[in-house]
Amino acid sequence: MLNKNVMTFIGCDAEYEDARIVLFGAPFDSTTSYRPGTRFASQAIRNESYGLETYSPYQDKDMTDYNYYFDSGDIELPIGDSEKVLSAIEERTKIILDDGKIPFMIGGEHLVTLGSIRAIAEKYPDLHIIHFDAHTDLRDEYLGVELSHASVIRRCWDILGDGRIFQFGIRSGERWEFEWAKEGHTSLQKFDFTGLAEAVRQIKGKPVYLTVDLDVLDPSVFPGTGTPEAGGVTFMELLNAIHTVCKDADIKGCDVNELCPPMDTSGASTATACKVVRELLLELSR
Amino acid sequence: MLNKNVMTFIGCDAEYEDARIVLFGAPFDSTTSYRPGTRFASQAIRNESYGLETYSPYQDKDMTDYNYYFDSGDIELPIGDSEKVLSAIEERTKIILDDGKIPFMIGGEHLVTLGSIRAIAEKYPDLHIIHFDAHTDLRDEYLGVELSHASVIRRCWDILGDGRIFQFGIRSGERWEFEWAKEGHTSLQKFDFTGLAEAVRQIKGKPVYLTVDLDVLDPSVFPGTGTPEAGGVTFMELLNAIHTVCKDADIKGCDVNELCPPMDTSGASTATACKVVRELLLELSR
Amino acid sequence: MLNKNVMTFIGCDAEYEDARIVLFGAPFDSTTSYRPGTRFASQAIRNESYGLETYSPYQDKDMTDYNYYFDSGDIELPIGDSEKVLSAIEERTKIILDDGKIPFMIGGEHLVTLGSIRAIAEKYPDLHIIHFDAHTDLRDEYLGVELSHASVIRRCWDILGDGRIFQFGIRSGERWEFEWAKEGHTSLQKFDFTGLAEAVRQIKGKPVYLTVDLDVLDPSVFPGTGTPEAGGVTFMELLNAIHTVCKDADIKGCDVNELCPPMDTSGASTATACKVVRELLLELSR
Amino acid sequence: MLNKNVMTFIGCDAEYEDARIVLFGAPFDSTTSYRPGTRFASQAIRNESYGLETYSPYQDKDMTDYNYYFDSGDIELPIGDSEKVLSAIEERTKIILDDGKIPFMIGGEHLVTLGSIRAIAEKYPDLHIIHFDAHTDLRDEYLGVELSHASVIRRCWDILGDGRIFQFGIRSGERWEFEWAKEGHTSLQKFDFTGLAEAVRQIKGKPVYLTVDLDVLDPSVFPGTGTPEAGGVTFMELLNAIHTVCKDADIKGCDVNELCPPMDTSGASTATACKVVRELLLELSR
Amino acid sequence: MLNKNVMTFIGCDAEYEDARIVLFGAPFDSTTSYRPGTRFASQAIRNESYGLETYSPYQDKDMTDYNYYFDSGDIELPIGDSEKVLSAIEERTKIILDDGKIPFMIGGEHLVTLGSIRAIAEKYPDLHIIHFDAHTDLRDEYLGVELSHASVIRRCWDILGDGRIFQFGIRSGERWEFEWAKEGHTSLQKFDFTGLAEAVRQIKGKPVYLTVDLDVLDPSVFPGTGTPEAGGVTFMELLNAIHTVCKDADIKGCDVNELCPPMDTSGASTATACKVVRELLLELSR
Amino acid sequence: MLNKNVMTFIGCDAEYEDARIVLFGAPFDSTTSYRPGTRFASQAIRNESYGLETYSPYQDKDMTDYNYYFDSGDIELPIGDSEKVLSAIEERTKIILDDGKIPFMIGGEHLVTLGSIRAIAEKYPDLHIIHFDAHTDLRDEYLGVELSHASVIRRCWDILGDGRIFQFGIRSGERWEFEWAKEGHTSLQKFDFTGLAEAVRQIKGKPVYLTVDLDVLDPSVFPGTGTPEAGGVTFMELLNAIHTVCKDADIKGCDVNELCPPMDTSGASTATACKVVRELLLELSR
Repeated sequence: MLNKNVMTFIGCDAEYEDARIVLFGAPFDSTTSYRPGTRFASQAIRNESYGLETYSPYQDKDMTDYNYYFDSGDIELPIGDSEKVLSAIEERTKIILDDGKIPFMIGGEHLVTLGSIRAIAEKYPDLHIIHFDAHTDLRDEYLGVELSHASVIRRCWDILGDGRIFQFGIRSGERWEFEWAKEGHTSLQKFDFTGLAEAVRQIKGKPVYLTVDLDVLDPSVFPGTGTPEAGGVTFMELLNAIHTVCKDADIKGCDVNELCPPMDTSGASTATACKVVRELLLELSR
Repeated sequence: MLNKNVMTFIGCDAEYEDARIVLFGAPFDSTTSYRPGTRFASQAIRNESYGLETYSPYQDKDMTDYNYYFDSGDIELPIGDSEKVLSAIEERTKIILDDGKIPFMIGGEHLVTLGSIRAIAEKYPDLHIIHFDAHTDLRDEYLGVELSHASVIRRCWDILGDGRIFQFGIRSGERWEFEWAKEGHTSLQKFDFTGLAEAVRQIKGKPVYLTVDLDVLDPSVFPGTGTPEAGGVTFMELLNAIHTVCKDADIKGCDVNELCPPMDTSGASTATACKVVRELLLELSR
Repeated sequence: MLNKNVMTFIGCDAEYEDARIVLFGAPFDSTTSYRPGTRFASQAIRNESYGLETYSPYQDKDMTDYNYYFDSGDIELPIGDSEKVLSAIEERTKIILDDGKIPFMIGGEHLVTLGSIRAIAEKYPDLHIIHFDAHTDLRDEYLGVELSHASVIRRCWDILGDGRIFQFGIRSGERWEFEWAKEGHTSLQKFDFTGLAEAVRQIKGKPVYLTVDLDVLDPSVFPGTGTPEAGGVTFMELLNAIHTVCKDADIKGCDVNELCPPMDTSGASTATACKVVRELLLELSR
Repeated sequence: MLNKNVMTFIGCDAEYEDARIVLFGAPFDSTTSYRPGTRFASQAIRNESYGLETYSPYQDKDMTDYNYYFDSGDIELPIGDSEKVLSAIEERTKIILDDGKIPFMIGGEHLVTLGSIRAIAEKYPDLHIIHFDAHTDLRDEYLGVELSHASVIRRCWDILGDGRIFQFGIRSGERWEFEWAKEGHTSLQKFDFTGLAEAVRQIKGKPVYLTVDLDVLDPSVFPGTGTPEAGGVTFMELLNAIHTVCKDADIKGCDVNELCPPMDTSGASTATACKVVRELLLELSR
Repeated sequence: MLNKNVMTFIGCDAEYEDARIVLFGAPFDSTTSYRPGTRFASQAIRNESYGLETYSPYQDKDMTDYNYYFDSGDIELPIGDSEKVLSAIEERTKIILDDGKIPFMIGGEHLVTLGSIRAIAEKYPDLHIIHFDAHTDLRDEYLGVELSHASVIRRCWDILGDGRIFQFGIRSGERWEFEWAKEGHTSLQKFDFTGLAEAVRQIKGKPVYLTVDLDVLDPSVFPGTGTPEAGGVTFMELLNAIHTVCKDADIKGCDVNELCPPMDTSGASTATACKVVRELLLELSR
Repeated sequence: MLNKNVMTFIGCDAEYEDARIVLFGAPFDSTTSYRPGTRFASQAIRNESYGLETYSPYQDKDMTDYNYYFDSGDIELPIGDSEKVLSAIEERTKIILDDGKIPFMIGGEHLVTLGSIRAIAEKYPDLHIIHFDAHTDLRDEYLGVELSHASVIRRCWDILGDGRIFQFGIRSGERWEFEWAKEGHTSLQKFDFTGLAEAVRQIKGKPVYLTVDLDVLDPSVFPGTGTPEAGGVTFMELLNAIHTVCKDADIKGCDVNELCPPMDTSGASTATACKVVRELLLELSR
């Protein structure tokens, strides 16, 4: 008797009941204003993860030490209708939250974060967001469209309000976006992770959502994304930042997004995304 | 004194007042269910057209014989909101129609056709559509989304009704789409152009819109598209079909769509798309 | 409660008990003498199949009409040891045969066929092979290596002997391979499918294995393979040949191999491979 | 004792003294008006040729039957100075001619043909050219440049005059080029090889140069070229045309040009170019 | 009434009369000794610039604050004749200079710099050059060709003489080129920007031309160039170097060259080139 | 009289008798568990080396100062049988050793190192290995296969035993591999070259083999490899490490491996590999 082909991120071998962290993919990129393709990221990450070990020499921890990880696959998304897409993501997130587990979404473009935030902020109204990104994502609309990957953090702010969002690594945006942040709406750190430890201390004990737009990485490390922005952080800086967050913050959910496989011509960006996912899974395993 | 950089399809040197055919690009692909990228087609076709001659050895006609062609560039489209996108296309089409010229749209995914049809059908209520495609495009909705590239001809039918749409080259779709067509809603010819001349005769004197989904071509000839379907027509069959239509039908508007430059790794599909545009422009020049 | 991510070829929704045809992947390419990469084919075909409909306009049949298809995933193969790889394939094939089902293997390089043939010829000693390919694959060894993709049909002949193997579409090989065939060891048809119907009649009632090396297709239709050979058959010729075989032969097993996704830069070859698999699955459904 | 690495086209194992046909590469593409890269063709063809057999099932001949072929490698060309480049080609051609052998050049862009023609026409003043191409190549100059790949046949005509040049497969050019040909300067056959046998008969006994611009092939068969032109000939049509020429004409030299490896993303065009070279070498072996 | 399609670098919205800086493209790469393709750079940079903001978080300046920038498009260059190409560039540069504006050229290969230098050195005989590059570019000739991208700085020296040229970031060249520089002909700094501030001080008040060969960047940051040289500078080091030059030197003209889009498979190098152009435009806006 | 085409790494112009260092290629990748393609590395490095100068500005040495280098080409390897492949490599290495020269192998996948080690350890039983790599390569077997690129250093340890192998830059492996090393079997330095100078001092006077798996480099610098691992060393760190080894160790043989040209989409990794080869050749020239 043979089994149906199962395809998960490596090391995601727990049964659903036992799992503490539940992965899912959100293969959506319809609002991407420039090069689309992030819709292929979650499947690419699963495929590629078979070249990865479950052991991290950085943390000296192994995914096999924990029976925590479950991969529930991609949501089937109604491509072409952003509102319906967000609802589907919200629904999946809610199921995972209701079962007492941590939702771990793999995008897709950054707009998908809004779906998760809707569900998590409903359960944890004093939610805070830690946001790693090259872009501000604070536009109020883009050519009249309010649900856009360039607006996603602004839409999260609509829900959470001032003082809840901490942005790091930002190096691209319109001038007024930087100014709007400076008015106190978000805490925005340009170029790097300066102030991250302080921010984490500041929100200690509060529920936190961590959203990692992989384009925070320098394009040398991570060319495989739709809008590469020179001048980003290194892989080790990102790992350290993730460690800084996870060791003290109360993470209620997280996502890793904006890998664009069609732009990842050598495969190195997908491999790097896999490692970020593995390191984040292990950092969340405490 | 220097001039700003102007970038048009080759041979489009008429002033707007003199032009009879007005090109525009509709760089939209948000409802594409599989591989996106057609948004880059109109600009790629302009760039590539400089490798093309204005003379057609097939028709023994030269674009320079006519002072007919104007390229009004791409519409700036609100990516992520299909309804707004269609309105913008409808508006551009209407301007061209109102000025007594033929709108010639370069997609983009196939959904953009709906924007043009809305404008043209308003002006010519007894409009007929001749549709070259590998796909039926007759779905009523796709995961709850009604505005989708897989539904575009169905949406056109919503406007025009039975007996107005003639489909050729179709070789992919769900069974019920073929059956729905057979119930008399559209005239659907599988695989090739059999019956085209007869169809053109049948609608002689009526206003006609010609929509060419380039994936009607065999993937050997045209691999650079999002959903390549083996078993298509040859380049010469397509040229002949275009000739059959243009020599007798009263074309009020047309489009050429679904070139997906990121999939066109050799550049040959973009070159072929350029030639289809040139041949169609010359066929329309009578 | 969420389910683990399942990933199968489209339309393979039967339970194992009910299935009549069982797919599996053999991701092996270690003996490939030129461009490797066919190891990625089975997973690529599964991924790509979601762009495919379950309905065939060629046969006017739909996979959903049958509850026949099961996808048991890829065998985990001990890369680097051909003999162990063949044993693993033989074992999987045997399980499927023992359960009274038809094994349908997706390669991988062509050597994988030998693993299946070993299992099937054991059960059906008077097995015949129908072989579509650009290459003879009749070398006795290649640089001293007997288990090679260039020798696979010769190795099958070692098991089955003269008069059992019918080769079509062959257009590449060393001279002595063609001559060796002509001595009566195999029936070899150069370039096309001439004589196929006759061959099928000749072995009517005998157990038959159909092995389709996709490079039998012309490189224009199927560039995504390791050793493309100009001058091949068209997609429709291949579909017709499959039909000719399946309507009369008693197929006990089959495979489709030599898609090399890294060479399929446009994706069109993978899409074509999917269609060949779908059409073959439907042809086998009688 | 080890030998230095030697790298030749497959089957070119003769010593220079014994050889009847001498290959050389002309890695030049500086006048290419659109996509450069043909400079990499000769080396790519050598590399790729190791995937080729020396036996042709089309001719039932094997390169090992003849001790005729020598590969003298690429000429080191002074990139950036077309006149010097042509002199270097002329010189290499002359050496081969003076040694009583047939020069077989692998381009490079089509301009390289002029270098060979200069040498051969000097030795054989009543030289005729048979020219397979998608393009007329009859421009008198291109932006003031007279030595251009778009002018190469015109430059040959400068040397040879009216009635000496027979062009086949032509489907792209400016109108006046077609008209200039029609005035009797060259014999120009549009689209295919109609009239080729007649032309060969007409020049029977005269010295002939055969220049094969591989873009005469349809882009489906041969996408890997800088200016792909839809509507070309098939691989079998080209093989037959080569056969038609070689069986009756007195070939004094030949070239195969315009493979552009950077555009040959699947490798199939390079493989096809190799086969054209092999078939031409065998056809010349009588 | 519709307008012709205009295509400029982002933010280049000034009228010619008002502009202080005039961009133009020099799409030439005929003397490139290895991988050609820089001819596509200027158009690729324009296309890609639409993904860029006009605001620089590095300088906290916005292109919209200035009405300085005009993009006059690409010069139509007589490909294949380097001397004619240089004349065309010289002529365009002269027009811009005569109108009292700063010419800002986008290459193309590095030889194009010579065209600009000819025009600028004629107007400003005591011109100095600041040169960022991985390569010395000091060869006197290359296979007998004096107009070569490997000789461009040597050709500039022919015009300007000793002590006028300051080279930084150099890490590739023949030994004698380094020695020739050391004899006092140019000031050559290996590997990095050490001494740049001092050099700028030294030539304060003199007219300066800044030529940026983007391969001065490390290939990790900028793989999309014809001759990538490991061991280069970072993006931030380049921005800082540009700032060091622009804040004190009297820039009369500048260029950014050697982006090779066909090598930029991920698009990240083109995006980085756009940012270098934007930052340089803003640095020049004082 | 013309010569056969010779193709060597640049600057390898010595006669065999005079050479001190003999290059050869080992184009093998059959045990690669993920992305194959390293078989194309040695030929790609030769081709690409023509873009390289023979002069190193790092060492201020020129290959032309020495008459030391000979390139004996690729071994023809029996693809598909690892044991036969290793024997062929061992044999070539032995010839070079017996002639009193240093074998310098260009892989191929890392398993090829075992062939060289067998020959060299036979001649120098107290051989030590210095190993630069991202991966431990210490698995005892992989799915039952003992000859695997993931086991190569373990197989070398089988020959040499404890205390002989020094590993640097390691950042990927299974936990037990790191633990096995820590038990004293090898000296394993995670992430970087810390302790290298000390290790070289420790084995001063002993025979040493240096094996450089190029994936020790960060993927930003070297994406063109089958299993890219984020967090690696820079190009300058690698050059310095090579210098540290070569200036004091008694190198009896070396290799550079794991360049995977199909993954090197921009060409920058192949260029970097060439530079590593050149720098290593020059460091060995004392």
